[in-house]
Parts: sequence; structure tokens; C-alpha cells
Amino acid sequence: MIDYKLLEALATVVETGGFERAGLALGLSQSAVSQRIRTLEIRLGQPVLVRSPVLRATPAGQRLLNHVQQVQLLERDLAKSIPALSEPAARLRIALNADSLATWWAAAVGEVSTREGLLLDLVVEDQDIGLRRMREGDVAACLCSSPQSVAGARCVHIGTMTYSPLARPDYVRRYFGKGLNELSLQTAPAIVFGPNDQLQHRFLAQCGYHGTFPHHLCPSSEGFVKLALAGMGYGMIPELQAHAEIQAGRLVSVAPEHTLEVSLYWHFWRHGGGVMERLTNALRSAAILHSTG
Amino acid sequence: MIDYKLLEALATVVETGGFERAGLALGLSQSAVSQRIRTLEIRLGQPVLVRSPVLRATPAGQRLLNHVQQVQLLERDLAKSIPALSEPAARLRIALNADSLATWWAAAVGEVSTREGLLLDLVVEDQDIGLRRMREGDVAACLCSSPQSVAGARCVHIGTMTYSPLARPDYVRRYFGKGLNELSLQTAPAIVFGPNDQLQHRFLAQCGYHGTFPHHLCPSSEGFVKLALAGMGYGMIPELQAHAEIQAGRLVSVAPEHTLEVSLYWHFWRHGGGVMERLTNALRSAAILHSTG
Repeated sequence: MIDYKLLEALATVVETGGFERAGLALGLSQSAVSQRIRTLEIRLGQPVLVRSPVLRATPAGQRLLNHVQQVQLLERDLAKSIPALSEPAARLRIALNADSLATWWAAAVGEVSTREGLLLDLVVEDQDIGLRRMREGDVAACLCSSPQSVAGARCVHIGTMTYSPLARPDYVRRYFGKGLNELSLQTAPAIVFGPNDQLQHRFLAQCGYHGTFPHHLCPSSEGFVKLALAGMGYGMIPELQAHAEIQAGRLVSVAPEHTLEVSLYWHFWRHGGGVMERLTNALRSAAILHSTG
Repeated sequence: MIDYKLLEALATVVETGGFERAGLALGLSQSAVSQRIRTLEIRLGQPVLVRSPVLRATPAGQRLLNHVQQVQLLERDLAKSIPALSEPAARLRIALNADSLATWWAAAVGEVSTREGLLLDLVVEDQDIGLRRMREGDVAACLCSSPQSVAGARCVHIGTMTYSPLARPDYVRRYFGKGLNELSLQTAPAIVFGPNDQLQHRFLAQCGYHGTFPHHLCPSSEGFVKLALAGMGYGMIPELQAHAEIQAGRLVSVAPEHTLEVSLYWHFWRHGGGVMERLTNALRSAAILHSTG
């Protein structure tokens, strides 16, 4: 079998971001941690860590991390039947989309995480990068809008988020007072999450518009809403997130007939054990995603 | 003088994320855009773009981008006195910390951005990376907690954000019911923004605690608050952001005597012209930062 002391050292170095901190966490000296990493690299015949520009795992190191994460999950299950085995909380690295994290995610997983003593390492990624990190073994699960399955992983549909093109009422009067047409779409500043954000393009295509448009880039869900509230532009915002603002009339749709539905899929390694199953069940029953879908 | 048609092509490729989209934006064919980039690279004797893993500017390309951004800002000023020169909105790339973007940023800059017809490319970075991108000329300005100045740039103090260690009341009873001590700090799950987040460490140091602690990693301001509201942990949250939650009793401080003040500094290139000055003034008068500081 693999020497798990070595893998644990690797996981702890990556998690804490340094050899000294890993030593503290493991109750070892810094040089003992370095020695374990060196031993692992000699056995593998290749590096498991790169030191610059930031400390991170090599592709081989990431595969080891994914493996050790899965083993830790299985150990959690085991510890339930053999309480004497109980360890400190298991860590689970999960990639997810920013809008889920900004809205319903924590409410859906909070109870099960606390009950299972899970600690989450959340990384915010768009779907292409999230799924790539999944394939590379860098994350144990990925929540995104792509149903494209990853070899060795399961993919389940967990619900739908509804997006509307929202802006401040005075902004709508200023730019869309004469209706939604080529001229207004060409001149009204939009807010876009990032260069790969497809929602704004999908909305414009629904309107039959394929030209260019001025836009702000704002890679933050909450910042996105704040830009709209400051009258800086209109943008595709989850109804879940803007509920209170819509109710209070602070944000209105520039085109109430145009909403976009985004399906969300949960990808996770098959061998995640009972903890992963219970986390998956909690996500699937996240009522908030169904009531608004 | 530099051929600005070439620099404009470079800026548009980077901004739109592709040659085809840049062509659409500039009213050129894709091959005409490629030809301009090639011409620029031949004149420079080095590449200005790298194509993989994602399309982005080389260090030399970034210096050109910074230059063209500054020229565009100066042109905005000129266009005010010679309206016939008016161009579509100027773009301004700004690095800032996630918590500012999630709270007061947009309200402070919304009016001036709209009046000046500015479009913002916001990038969320911690201070070290934000200042590095500033030095590399990749951003025109950087809002962060470091007063360390960048050669050629000005640095002004614009206010203070106050952070408190917040959690759900039942969480506080569960983990800190017997007070804040070594045992409780060692076992209570914390929420940390990322491996480089210093706030949690500063809070623990204030409490005289230097050991390890279980924690979730959550690189999203709004997600951070949601995790706390879901009872998953406690974390350092800006009072600005949690105001309503604190008022309603949904979040409380685990240690009311311990708050942390974080000063914010605005770094910007000296030659940004009047637009940059007016943006800076808007930030300096952001009342919300002073009333809570």
C-alpha cells in the first residue's frame, strides 16, 4: 500500500500553503515535512509540488491529493461505525459557480457539513475550468452548468436558476425608455461577469441582437448587483439573489419577457463514500432551486 | 509616434478575449486583426500575446496595454474641450479587494463613472497580486490594504473598514458558550477567505492564540456571509456587509471586544488625467467608509 504519511504531508503542505505551517498542523518539524515530500518524489520519480510563483501541486501531485481526499472520506464513514477511529474533520475541495455560492449553496449544505464535521475548501470557477480541475483530480466535486460527464465521476442534475436582465428604474427609463431595440442594446452599458460569461450573449441573442455593446466587467456576484444598484449598467442577475431588490422596486427587468434558465449539475467522484452521497442528497433537495425554477 | 491602430487592436483582443470578437468590435476582419498584432510583434521583436492556456498579454504586451489605457484617459479629457472628438466610453482596468466590491465600491464610483462614460474592468485580487499587476502595467489602479507605493504611481488613503468575528447565535453558544479560550479557538470551525487571508490570523493573535484551527476556505465575500448564516463557522466579516444581519440578530460577534480595522489605499498612475482625479475624489469622499471607521 501507499505510505499515507507521505500523502498526508503533501495534502497538508498544499492545504496550509507552506512547509512550516504544515509542520505545525502535523506536529512535525519543517525539515521532517520536507523529507516526506522528497521521499514521495523519489518514489514517484517526479515532483509533486512546484514552489513558484506559488506553492502548488504538480498534475501528479494533484492526482495524489484527489486520492488521499477520497480515502479520507471513506475513513469518515468507517469512523461512524468505529468511533474510536474518529479523526479531526475531513476536508473536501469543491469547485462551484460564483452565483450558487452567493445565494443558495451554504443554506443547502450547512446542516450536513456540520453534522458530518466536514470542512470545505471552496474554489470559484466557471464550468470549463471547474471540470478541468475535476479531471485533473484537483477537486472532489464540481457544481456547474455543464452536463458533460467526467470519466469516473457521476453527474446529477440538481435544479435550475432563473436569470433576469435587471437595472435601476431610472437606468431603464434612460436607455430603454423607447423600448428594447438595436440602438438601445448597442448603447446601454451592460455588466458582464467575465470574458467567458455567456449569459449576456444568450440574452442578446434572444433579443435578436448580435452586435457589440459597451460593458463593465465585474467578477463578483455581489459586486454585480451593487453595480446595477449604482445605476452603472444592466446585467443578468439570478432572481434568487435580487428578490428583495425586485420586491422593493430598486431593480426592475429591462425585458420582463426575457428570462434565462440555467440548469446546474453536480459532478463528483464515484468513490466518495457515504459522506459524498449525503452531501449530494442535501444539494438535490435544496428546495430554493426548485421553487423558483 | 506609436501606431495606435496596432495598440488598439491589442487592447481589443485582450478585452474581448479573441481575434474574432475583436474584429467584430473594431469592424475589421479577423485576419486584419491578426495582421495588426503580427506587425506590432515584428516591430517590438517579441510577442505581445500568449495563446495558451488562455489568451493574455505578455509582460511587454501588458506595458503597452497600460500605456494605451492612459492615452485613452487623456483623450477623454481632451474630448471634453473638443466634443467633436468624442469616442465611445473609455475602459479602465482596476484591481480591488473582494470585500470593497461586495459593499461600498459601486455606490462610491457609480455617479462619476456614468457621468464620465467610463466602463470598468474590475479584477478581484488580494493586495500582493493587485500591486504586482499594477507594477506590470496590467491595471490602471489598485485598491488594497497596502500603503506600499508603486514607482510612478500615487497612493492615497481613502478610509477604513471594520471587521468583526461573526457567527450565528447558536454557533456561538455551541462553540464559545464557555468563553473564548484556547480549547474553543482550537475546535471552532472558522471561515477563511483564502490561504493568504491574514484577518483570521490577526484576530487569533489578538486573542493570544497561535495554534492551528479547523477552517473552511471560501473565496467569495457573499459566500462567506452565507456560510456564517448557515452555521458552518465564524469569520471576520466587514460590519458594512453584515449590518442588516447584525441588526436582526442573525449574526453576532464571538468576541465583541475584538474588532479589526483595515485601512484601504488607492494606487493609481500619475498620468491618468482628470478622469482619474475625479474617480479618486469620488473614492475619497465615500462617506460610508468614514462613518463606520
